[in-house]
Amino acid sequence: MTRLLLAAVLAGGLATALPAAAQFKKPEDAIKYRQSAMTLIAHHFGGLAAMAQGKVPYDAKAATFNADIVATLAHLPFTAFGEGTDMDLHTKAKEAIWKDPAKFKAAQDKLFAAVTKLDAAAKVGTVDALKPAVGATGEACKGCHDDFRSK
Amino acid sequence: MTRLLLAAVLAGGLATALPAAAQFKKPEDAIKYRQSAMTLIAHHFGGLAAMAQGKVPYDAKAATFNADIVATLAHLPFTAFGEGTDMDLHTKAKEAIWKDPAKFKAAQDKLFAAVTKLDAAAKVGTVDALKPAVGATGEACKGCHDDFRSK
Repeated sequence: MTRLLLAAVLAGGLATALPAAAQFKKPEDAIKYRQSAMTLIAHHFGGLAAMAQGKVPYDAKAATFNADIVATLAHLPFTAFGEGTDMDLHTKAKEAIWKDPAKFKAAQDKLFAAVTKLDAAAKVGTVDALKPAVGATGEACKGCHDDFRSK
Repeated sequence: MTRLLLAAVLAGGLATALPAAAQFKKPEDAIKYRQSAMTLIAHHFGGLAAMAQGKVPYDAKAATFNADIVATLAHLPFTAFGEGTDMDLHTKAKEAIWKDPAKFKAAQDKLFAAVTKLDAAAKVGTVDALKPAVGATGEACKGCHDDFRSK
């Protein structure tokens, strides 16, 4: 189900299929991987948010680039929450991730839908198209962080 | 020049243009960003290398996915070697990056050419097509690390 869904979401993008779960030698590798993906997502989404909020001038090419990166990378962290990756001190991941996988999956799906729309909105080429898509994506980020990530 | 070159390299891929340099509030942010990109690149290239070396079964969809990620992300770290980002203790970046920018640029160009071929090779759908492209990409990684990254 997850594979099918991800494949469908990604069909219009970079990848033809997302492996169901990435392979990691150690739990620490998975944690570093998902945190790295989140760092990049935060950076490129931050660029879009700054444009949407008028903090930097709107730049259609930069918007498309950032949105494409975000839409691609949004899928990666979720391949790295396998068993045993909740044990490290250097993770803010909450137990709810493993205790309520259906809710965690729903939060991911919300994000995937939002970033697909974000990618499309960036391609429109106007800041007015970008604004609501940035808002919806930011809500999806925040909702998941509120429930599944410690402060 | 860099913008044009990157735009040309990326023309067939995800992005329509790569901003010349990403914006970072602090040097530490740039270092974390480029290290995060390298972590993801290493992971996805590792998946390709394992297939090329016969350590894991060849999987055409996973190969395409990994190669697309590598080809996209390969460009990102190099937007984050701006002035002042050589001062942090938590970086293995050598001074040569800033002392010999032409050589550093040539090493990047070698990588960009290699990952473009890697992406195309993965789409062929055979391990025999993948092997030489993985080898060439690995050489580009190693060459740059040898010259510009401390052990």
